[in-house]
Amino acid sequence: MQQNWMSRFSENIKNFEGYSIGKTLKFLKDPDIISLAGGLPSPDMFTIDEVRNVSQKMLMDDAEHILQYSGVPGESNLIQAIIGFLKKDNIEVSEENLLITTSGQQGLDLTGRLFLNPGDIVMLDRPTFAGAIVAFQMERPEFIGIKIEQDGSNVTDFKQKLEELQKVNKKPKFIYVVPDFQNPSGITMSLEKRKALLDLSYEYDIPIVEDSPYRAFRYQGEHIPALYTLDQKQEGGHVIGLYTFSKLFAPGMRVGFNIAHPEVIEKMTNIKEGNILNTPKYNQDIVAAFLTKMDPDAHIEKCKKYYGEKLEIFLNAMDDNFPAEMGVSWTKPEGGLFLWVTMPKNINTNELFFDALKYKVAFIPGDSFFGENPELNHMRINFSYASKEQLVEAVKRLSMCVKDKINKK
Amino acid sequence: MQQNWMSRFSENIKNFEGYSIGKTLKFLKDPDIISLAGGLPSPDMFTIDEVRNVSQKMLMDDAEHILQYSGVPGESNLIQAIIGFLKKDNIEVSEENLLITTSGQQGLDLTGRLFLNPGDIVMLDRPTFAGAIVAFQMERPEFIGIKIEQDGSNVTDFKQKLEELQKVNKKPKFIYVVPDFQNPSGITMSLEKRKALLDLSYEYDIPIVEDSPYRAFRYQGEHIPALYTLDQKQEGGHVIGLYTFSKLFAPGMRVGFNIAHPEVIEKMTNIKEGNILNTPKYNQDIVAAFLTKMDPDAHIEKCKKYYGEKLEIFLNAMDDNFPAEMGVSWTKPEGGLFLWVTMPKNINTNELFFDALKYKVAFIPGDSFFGENPELNHMRINFSYASKEQLVEAVKRLSMCVKDKINKK
Repeated sequence: MQQNWMSRFSENIKNFEGYSIGKTLKFLKDPDIISLAGGLPSPDMFTIDEVRNVSQKMLMDDAEHILQYSGVPGESNLIQAIIGFLKKDNIEVSEENLLITTSGQQGLDLTGRLFLNPGDIVMLDRPTFAGAIVAFQMERPEFIGIKIEQDGSNVTDFKQKLEELQKVNKKPKFIYVVPDFQNPSGITMSLEKRKALLDLSYEYDIPIVEDSPYRAFRYQGEHIPALYTLDQKQEGGHVIGLYTFSKLFAPGMRVGFNIAHPEVIEKMTNIKEGNILNTPKYNQDIVAAFLTKMDPDAHIEKCKKYYGEKLEIFLNAMDDNFPAEMGVSWTKPEGGLFLWVTMPKNINTNELFFDALKYKVAFIPGDSFFGENPELNHMRINFSYASKEQLVEAVKRLSMCVKDKINKK
Repeated sequence: MQQNWMSRFSENIKNFEGYSIGKTLKFLKDPDIISLAGGLPSPDMFTIDEVRNVSQKMLMDDAEHILQYSGVPGESNLIQAIIGFLKKDNIEVSEENLLITTSGQQGLDLTGRLFLNPGDIVMLDRPTFAGAIVAFQMERPEFIGIKIEQDGSNVTDFKQKLEELQKVNKKPKFIYVVPDFQNPSGITMSLEKRKALLDLSYEYDIPIVEDSPYRAFRYQGEHIPALYTLDQKQEGGHVIGLYTFSKLFAPGMRVGFNIAHPEVIEKMTNIKEGNILNTPKYNQDIVAAFLTKMDPDAHIEKCKKYYGEKLEIFLNAMDDNFPAEMGVSWTKPEGGLFLWVTMPKNINTNELFFDALKYKVAFIPGDSFFGENPELNHMRINFSYASKEQLVEAVKRLSMCVKDKINKK
């Protein structure tokens, strides 16, 4: 019996293909390839001994609860630890503002499902995080992207677009930003722009979704208050904060959290209930132990030193290997795990990707990071996973590959 | 600044309130209450020592991978173990037919998202599993329920309804059933009805979603082939199977799997990618160890003996405490964790629930288990969690409560 499955699938999903990045990573099985592609934290930064000890003690003391169902909103030991963690960043929340998520991707999906009908507008940067685009795409919104600048979102262009939309009685459901060390560009939004974006949010009555996976990883420059903090000072309640422990601690535990107005958190909790019921207690307890027993401040300092050195080495290698006449430019992040390299306009990085594989080096082509009208001459570079030696070698290989490509054109 | 959040929420979610059962459980904080409400497996059946040993070894040997991102479809050691596990049940699948889920609830949600547009029809039993109703509700389908009989779904009524729908050019997206020891009724579908339901599925070209959380827990009577097996024998490819390790092993790990035609699995994998990315490797590896190192057959035998005794004790207590003149009836399951008690028509179990709390006993009111037009005089009883002594005492209390209620009417 023949089945025509495609004809049965929902309108939201039938043309949805998930992460294009996942498909790119499948080409990287050759161990000689130095990958600057994935967004993996370095295993050098994993607190393996501490996890072993904590895990053993947890399973000694509390196995019955660990193996049983647990509450949908999250474990209270973890919730309390997060409240303390956020307080150090001048974010004041209580339990009713907080939902434990099965990591940042679920935080994004809960946001998309809560707000978006097909055709609703989401405003975001060009480029922006591909995982957010993928999560929101499942609700088939319209994306309106505004080109990001060196100091963050172009708030003037956001405002102009909002005015245009207002004239035709349209209003975005929310504005999505990654203010700190944005994935993929590494760009950080200045304090002035954060304030201006919040003003826009108040003026046009539009919530802001602030995605903060990398916020703790600043290697230089000054810490800038979160949009959530700035909003709280004005009693705005306009910001929804998305966090994950994937970079800060370990992606394998799949634990993160969303913070927002209680009405938002209550509805997200309902969706989580229908979606996956609860985040596993074991995984939450390990993360709670990270925050309360593994000296997270020292861990973060160690990560900052380690990743900061890698970034510096990478940027120096770029200076050495991409002389100005090549017409290649790149961002200079102050933190995070990524930067954004822009090729001459006539180089399509989807093609360059396969050329680079021959030179045994890999990156992510930039087109995945646009909600609409993708630009084709960018690449996202991850500098956290490869070793320092590999980073230098990778830049040399990439430079040779690009030179070869330019000469052929 | 005031925020009118409700006005911003999506059409799918703004009236969605999650599990009503979750809200019921909040009333059960008094430790003197004997709860027959939740669907918890007994901690007596947890293989705690084995989990401790396996966990320690895993974190010794493989911590770097456990703490890192892992693949979206699932860990291949677990996938291979499941393929072997299913083969013993005469279900033949390969990797392309299988997706690891973050447990049964995600399996249901992936199904709803993949197939349902608002207003699409889902056919199901009256009553049926509340968690399925909740998952599908997020897509706002129309439910058409058919009253279940002692030997399973009323296939004749299903057929009649399908004919009626066909006359107005309508077709359900799928039929949802729990053929083995259904939650909430404990009812099992006979072999004849399974075959007849499959025939309907072929005749009207409608997929069947077969939810099988309790299938291994048969305490008496003969094992009946899964719909998936019967369909495979006819090369149908019409059945989507949903499984979880929550009852079989431990709910706390949040691991399950879906099996289906490769086109279905591919799309579900895409949705999973946008929803939560990957199921944590630690949790998958523990379940893989359960299947390959913890003698699952012996474990299942132990569970069957333990839960089977509890069921027998419960049914005997019902016979002793609910004489025929009370007008109370109940199902006699051959396995699973639940049974269904029907009160005289004039008793509303939502009210009786609060009366029962005064008698320090709790159940789940039956109205949550109807997709539409809920009946109000049923209750779902879980007999797996409370101790044997508590089960007998709980039935006595329930009987006193009901007698009191009947006398007051």
